[in-house]
Amino acid sequence: MKRKVCVVVTARPSYSRIKSALRAITDHPDLELQLVVGASALLNLYGETIKYIERDGFHVSARVYMVLEGANPVTSAKSTGLGMVELATVFDNLRPDVVVTVADRYETLATAVAASYMNIPVAHVQGGEVSGSIDEKVRHAVTKLSNLHFVAHPKAAERVIRMGEDAKTVFATGCPSIDLAASVLKRPALDFDPFERYGGVGPIVDLSQGYIIVMQHPVTTEYGEARRCITETLLAVQELGIAALWFWPNVDAGSDGISKGIRSFRELQAPRNVHFFINMASDDFLRLAYNSLCIVGNSSVAIRECSFLGVPAVNIGTRQAHRDRGQNVIDVDYRRDEIVRAVRTHLSRGRPPSDSLYGDGRAGQRIADLLAREPLRIEKYLAY
Amino acid sequence: MKRKVCVVVTARPSYSRIKSALRAITDHPDLELQLVVGASALLNLYGETIKYIERDGFHVSARVYMVLEGANPVTSAKSTGLGMVELATVFDNLRPDVVVTVADRYETLATAVAASYMNIPVAHVQGGEVSGSIDEKVRHAVTKLSNLHFVAHPKAAERVIRMGEDAKTVFATGCPSIDLAASVLKRPALDFDPFERYGGVGPIVDLSQGYIIVMQHPVTTEYGEARRCITETLLAVQELGIAALWFWPNVDAGSDGISKGIRSFRELQAPRNVHFFINMASDDFLRLAYNSLCIVGNSSVAIRECSFLGVPAVNIGTRQAHRDRGQNVIDVDYRRDEIVRAVRTHLSRGRPPSDSLYGDGRAGQRIADLLAREPLRIEKYLAY
Amino acid sequence: MKRKVCVVVTARPSYSRIKSALRAITDHPDLELQLVVGASALLNLYGETIKYIERDGFHVSARVYMVLEGANPVTSAKSTGLGMVELATVFDNLRPDVVVTVADRYETLATAVAASYMNIPVAHVQGGEVSGSIDEKVRHAVTKLSNLHFVAHPKAAERVIRMGEDAKTVFATGCPSIDLAASVLKRPALDFDPFERYGGVGPIVDLSQGYIIVMQHPVTTEYGEARRCITETLLAVQELGIAALWFWPNVDAGSDGISKGIRSFRELQAPRNVHFFINMASDDFLRLAYNSLCIVGNSSVAIRECSFLGVPAVNIGTRQAHRDRGQNVIDVDYRRDEIVRAVRTHLSRGRPPSDSLYGDGRAGQRIADLLAREPLRIEKYLAY
Amino acid sequence: MKRKVCVVVTARPSYSRIKSALRAITDHPDLELQLVVGASALLNLYGETIKYIERDGFHVSARVYMVLEGANPVTSAKSTGLGMVELATVFDNLRPDVVVTVADRYETLATAVAASYMNIPVAHVQGGEVSGSIDEKVRHAVTKLSNLHFVAHPKAAERVIRMGEDAKTVFATGCPSIDLAASVLKRPALDFDPFERYGGVGPIVDLSQGYIIVMQHPVTTEYGEARRCITETLLAVQELGIAALWFWPNVDAGSDGISKGIRSFRELQAPRNVHFFINMASDDFLRLAYNSLCIVGNSSVAIRECSFLGVPAVNIGTRQAHRDRGQNVIDVDYRRDEIVRAVRTHLSRGRPPSDSLYGDGRAGQRIADLLAREPLRIEKYLAY
Repeated sequence: MKRKVCVVVTARPSYSRIKSALRAITDHPDLELQLVVGASALLNLYGETIKYIERDGFHVSARVYMVLEGANPVTSAKSTGLGMVELATVFDNLRPDVVVTVADRYETLATAVAASYMNIPVAHVQGGEVSGSIDEKVRHAVTKLSNLHFVAHPKAAERVIRMGEDAKTVFATGCPSIDLAASVLKRPALDFDPFERYGGVGPIVDLSQGYIIVMQHPVTTEYGEARRCITETLLAVQELGIAALWFWPNVDAGSDGISKGIRSFRELQAPRNVHFFINMASDDFLRLAYNSLCIVGNSSVAIRECSFLGVPAVNIGTRQAHRDRGQNVIDVDYRRDEIVRAVRTHLSRGRPPSDSLYGDGRAGQRIADLLAREPLRIEKYLAY
Repeated sequence: MKRKVCVVVTARPSYSRIKSALRAITDHPDLELQLVVGASALLNLYGETIKYIERDGFHVSARVYMVLEGANPVTSAKSTGLGMVELATVFDNLRPDVVVTVADRYETLATAVAASYMNIPVAHVQGGEVSGSIDEKVRHAVTKLSNLHFVAHPKAAERVIRMGEDAKTVFATGCPSIDLAASVLKRPALDFDPFERYGGVGPIVDLSQGYIIVMQHPVTTEYGEARRCITETLLAVQELGIAALWFWPNVDAGSDGISKGIRSFRELQAPRNVHFFINMASDDFLRLAYNSLCIVGNSSVAIRECSFLGVPAVNIGTRQAHRDRGQNVIDVDYRRDEIVRAVRTHLSRGRPPSDSLYGDGRAGQRIADLLAREPLRIEKYLAY
Repeated sequence: MKRKVCVVVTARPSYSRIKSALRAITDHPDLELQLVVGASALLNLYGETIKYIERDGFHVSARVYMVLEGANPVTSAKSTGLGMVELATVFDNLRPDVVVTVADRYETLATAVAASYMNIPVAHVQGGEVSGSIDEKVRHAVTKLSNLHFVAHPKAAERVIRMGEDAKTVFATGCPSIDLAASVLKRPALDFDPFERYGGVGPIVDLSQGYIIVMQHPVTTEYGEARRCITETLLAVQELGIAALWFWPNVDAGSDGISKGIRSFRELQAPRNVHFFINMASDDFLRLAYNSLCIVGNSSVAIRECSFLGVPAVNIGTRQAHRDRGQNVIDVDYRRDEIVRAVRTHLSRGRPPSDSLYGDGRAGQRIADLLAREPLRIEKYLAY
Repeated sequence: MKRKVCVVVTARPSYSRIKSALRAITDHPDLELQLVVGASALLNLYGETIKYIERDGFHVSARVYMVLEGANPVTSAKSTGLGMVELATVFDNLRPDVVVTVADRYETLATAVAASYMNIPVAHVQGGEVSGSIDEKVRHAVTKLSNLHFVAHPKAAERVIRMGEDAKTVFATGCPSIDLAASVLKRPALDFDPFERYGGVGPIVDLSQGYIIVMQHPVTTEYGEARRCITETLLAVQELGIAALWFWPNVDAGSDGISKGIRSFRELQAPRNVHFFINMASDDFLRLAYNSLCIVGNSSVAIRECSFLGVPAVNIGTRQAHRDRGQNVIDVDYRRDEIVRAVRTHLSRGRPPSDSLYGDGRAGQRIADLLAREPLRIEKYLAY
C-alpha cells in the first residue's frame, strides 16, 4: 500500500521550490502524489502557475480558488481562513497519509492547520529560518503544527530542535529550490529569447551588454509603505541605466501598492531600460538569473538560489532581514543611492563562488525517501 | 487615547478563564474592552455562555457563529477557517490595538492568525503549558504568532522563552481562572440548589452524603474512541454508587461520540446516582467543585482550579498528559477499575492543601496592567 | 461523449425523492452521474444518509460538510453561503454539463446559485408547488435560476410557465418520490422489525393493533415557536394512546427547539406509546407508512407519497399551507384537540384511494431521458 | 421606534443608483439607515467607492470584503457564497427591520438570500426588468425572495406581478439612479477638469471639440470572449478618432480579459485619442456624460440615466438585450464597423429629447416613504 502524499502548491515560488520533491515523490515506488493547486497558482494575474505544472506532466487532483481581492491585511487573513475551509474538504475527499506544506505563506499555514485538525501528519519544508515580517510568525507556527521537518541546513535544524521539536523528526535535507538551480548549472547558457517566449510589457531591452534582474515584493508588516519603497528601486534602476528585467510581485498585502507604483512610474517616466515580466518557468528564470550581472530586490531567490548560482545580489529592506545568507549578498535600505552604490560595488567585484548553504541539489530525493520511510505520527509534546 | 483591547470568547471554559481579566480591562482607565462572542459560546446546546456574559454586565461588540455541525476532525478544521474569515471582518470593523486570545482551542488559533495577518499585536493567555492532543500543537503555534505572553507559572514562562520568544514579552501573571477560584474561596459554602437553578436531566440526587463531579471531553487525536472511553467512566461511576453531577462536554471533534455514549447509557442503564447538567455559571460550578468529594474526568479544571481549591482529582487518559500538576491529581487510564480505585484512594486520603501552582488570584489585574503598559509591537524574530 | 449530470444530495428526504432518478441516470447509456453528498446527509445526528447512499451502490464523487451548528435563522443563511463557496470548488473540479437540484432547501438554492454563476445549466426537480415558509421563497427563486424544470404535475407546470419560464423547458414528469412509493406498493407487506433494524429510543411499542407515524419539522418563519408547537403534538399523541412511531426532524432553523421539546417531554412524561427513530431507509419508511393507520405532522411525505399510498394524513400548521393535496389530508392548527379529533375522523373513515396527483411512478426514467435529450442552455429571458 | 433600514452597497454603479434613497432614508423621521459597504466598493482597483460614500457624509455601519480574485465564473459563485456568510453575521449584529438590495449583482443575491433565511423582510430596487446574461436569472430570483418591490416603471411592475408577486407589494417608484441624473440636469455645465480631478492613464485628450464616453463590461455568460469583444470597441474608437473617455469595467467574471485587452491595446497601439479612468464620483460622471456626444459600450447607464439626460447611446452586444429602452439607443453587435456607423448616425442626428422611462427624479423619496409606511412581512405565496 503506497503512502498518499498530498502537496499543496499555491504560488509561483513555492512551486519551483518543491518541484524536485514532486518529481521524486511521483517516481518513488512507495509513494503516491496527490497534488492540490490553489490560490495565486491558479490566477492569470500571477502567471497561471497551474499551466506550468500541467506542462511539467503532473496530474492535478484538485483546484481551489482561495485568494480574496484587496491584497491588504484584512484580505490576507480572510484568504487564510477560506483556504482552510476548502482544504479541509479537499483532504476529506483525498484522504492523504501525510500533507506537505512549503515555506511560510498564508496557504502554508492554512494547509498545516487544516491537516492538523484532521489528524493528518504534516511535513514542513523550509522551517527553522529567520526572516522578518509576518512570514517569521507563520513559519515558526507551522513548525509547531508539523510532525516532520525538512530544513535547508544544519543551523535551521538546530533552531527547529531548540524550539522544542523532537530531533528525530528534523532533517537537514537541503532546500529543494537548490535542486532546480543545480540542474540549471549543468546547462547554464541562456538558450532562449525571454521577450519572445514570455512577452511582458515595456521596451525590448538589449541583453548583450549585461543586465540585472529586479524582483521586489511588498512587506506585509509595512503595508502602506509599499508604493514609496518600490519607487526608490525604480529610480535606482533608472539611474543605473543598465538593462533590467523586472518581475511582477506576488499577491500579498501591499502588492496593490507595488503594482500602482510600477504602473504610474511607467506612465510618467517611460523608462527605456526596463522590461516587465509577469511570470516565467522557473528553470528559465534561474538561467536568466545565472547570466545576469546582479539581482536586485527583496526576493528570497536572491539569497537562496543565487547563493548557489553565484549571482551577486542587492537585498533591499527588511523582508529578508536575519535570513541566513552567503557572500553574494549586499544589504541596503529602501534608498535609491544605496541601491545604486551596492550594484556598482558588485559590478566591480565580479561573481562570488557557488555556496551550498541552502543545499547541494539532492533535497527532493531525500524528502521523498524520508516521506516513504519515517513513521507518520500526529501526537507530539514539547521536548522540555 | 485608550488602548482598544479586543478579547474573543468562544466557549464556556475560556470565558471563566478570562473573566477576571475582562473585568480588570473594563475597569482600567487606559483600556477599552471590545468583547467578541462566538462559536459554542452562542449555542444553546453548550449552554449559551453569552447569556452569562451579558448577565455579568459585559457589553458584546460582535457575535459570530462559526461552528460547523459534525463535531469531527473535518468540521473542526473548517470551523477554524470560518472563524478566521469572520474574525478578520470583525477586527476590520472594530480596529483594536491588541487582540487577546485564550488557551489552545481552534478559535484561539483562528483569532491569533487573523490578528497576525492584520498586523494587530496578539496577547496570548496560557501559553507554555504541555498537554497532549491537538491542543499541544495549537497552543505552541499560537505562542509563535503572539507578541505578548501571559502565562500561568514560571515553568511555562521558561518554556515560552526556550521556544525562542523574547523574555521581555513573557510574563508569569498566573492564570486568570485561579482568580475566580480565589474569589469563590472567600465564600465557599454551597448556597444554592443546583437542580433548581440549572435543571439538567436525570434523577435529583442526594448531595448531603457527598458527591463527585464528572467532566470528560473528547480527545480529538483519538477521534472514534470517544464513545468507548466515556463508557468506562459511566460504568465506574455506576459502580461507585456515589451521587454524581455530570457536565456535558465541549463541542469538539468526538463530542458526538460522547453524547451518544451518554445518551445510550442513560437509556439502557437509567443510572440512579447521576444527574446531568449542560452548563453552569462558573462561580457556581467552582463552589460545587469545592464542596465535592472528588472531580473525575479529563477537564483541565481538575488540574488548574481544583489544585488551588484543594479538591482531589482523578484524571483519565491522555488529554492532560504532561500538563504541570499539583498533589491533588491521580492519573488513570480509560479503565473502569482504575477509575474506581483512584476515587476510593482519594476518599481515604482526604483533601489536599491549596496549591498556587497556577496562580495566586491576581492574574486578571496583572494582565490588564500589562496590556495598558507594555509596548505593542508586531515584528518579532526568533531569539536564536 | 456522455453528458455529465451532477446531482447534489444533502438530506434524507431529498435523497429518497431523487433516488429513482439517480438510478435511471446511472443506467442511461448517454449519461454519467456525478453524485455530491453534503450537509445533513453526512451527519450522524440526522442518520448519516451517506451510508444508505453507498449501500444502495452509488459512487460518491465528493463529500461536503456545510451545516453550521445553531439551527437558527443566522446559521441557515451562513450554511447556504458556505455551501455555495464549496460547491463552486466541487463543480470546478467535476466540470459537469448540467447540475440537478432538488426541491426547496437551502442547499438547493446554494447548488442553483453556484451552478448559475459558473454558467452550468441547472435542472430543478419539484418547482411550481406552493407551500409556505421560507421554502416558498427559495423554491421559486430556484425556478428563476433554472434552465430545465421537472415538476410533479400539470398545475405545477402551469405555475412555472406563468412565472415567465419558457414552456419548452417545463416538463410534468411527476415527482421521483412517487417512484419509490410505487415500487413499495408492489410489495407492501411490513416484512421487517423496525426496532430491531433501526434501534431508536423509547419503549418498544406494540404495532399489532395499528400505529400512527409522526413527523414534524420546524417552521423557519415561525422560529421561536418550535417548542410550543411540538408540545401540542406530543400531548395529542399521548392522549390518543395509539402506538406511535416518531421521526426526528430535519436540521433546520428551529430543530433545536423541537429536539428540546421532545427531550423534555420524554424526561417528564415518559410516554409509554411512543418510540423515536432518527432515520430509516426510505423504502422501509414508506412500507411502514403504508401499513400505518395515519401519518401526523407537517412533513410533505404525508401529502406527496401518502396520497399515492392512500394513507390518511393529519397535516398540522402552516408548513404545507397551499401545497396541492389529495383527499387523504385533514388540515389542523397547532392544537392538541384538533389533532386528536382529526386522527379519530380518519380512523372512522378508513383509507382513501390511491391518488396519482404527484406522479405515476415513472418520473426518474423521464428525468433521465430528458437530461440526455434536451438542449442544455444557460441563457434565458423572461417570456413576457 | 424608528424602523432600521439596512442597505448593502457593493459597487460603484449600485451606489449611484441608490444614493438618493440613502439620503431620503437618512432624512426620514421614522427611519434609521444602517449602511453596509462591501465587495468592490472597498477595493482600490475599482475606485474605492467607500471614499465617495464617506465623503458624501454617510456613516458606514460595517465593511465586508467578499470578492475572490480571479474574476471568473468559479470565483463569482464563491464570492456570492462568501458574501452570504458574512452578511448573515452583519445582519445578526445590526438587527435591521428591513434589508434593501439593489439591482441584479451577485452581492444583491447574497443580500437577499441572507436576509430571507434570517426572516428579515427584503425590499428590492430595480426588479421586473429584462436584460440577459446571468443578471437576468439573478434579478428574477431576487424578486422571488423579496417582499417589497420598488421598480422603475409600470411595465416592470406588471412583470413582477405576472411572476406571481402580490400587486399590493409592487411600486413603480422610478429608479433612484434617475434622481441623480435629474439633479445633474439642474446644473449641467461641465464645471471641472476630469484629468485634474481623477488622474487616470493615457494622453490628456482635447474635450473642446466634443468627446465620447466608453464603458464596456464583461458578459459573464460569454466568459472567455471578453478580450475579443473589447478589442472591437477599441478598434472602433481608434478609427473614429474622436476624443474618448474610457471607464474601467466592474469586477466580474471576464473583467480580467477586458483589462488584458485594454492593457495590450494600449501597449501596442498607444491610442492618442483615449484617456482611461478608474472611477469617478457619479454626479461628475453624469455631468461628463451629459456633455458628451455619445456614450458607447454595454453599460446600463447608457440606457437608464442617458435616456433621461438625452444622450445618444450605442449599445454593444447582448448585455442589455431586451432591456426596456428609449429613443436614444442604437443597438449593434461586437463589430468595429457597426460601432463606428452607429456613432456617426448619432452624430448626424443630434441629441434625443429627455425621456422619463426610468423615472422622474423622485424615486428616492418615494422609496423612503414606502419603507416607513408599508407593512413589513416575510410570508408570501405565489399569487396563482
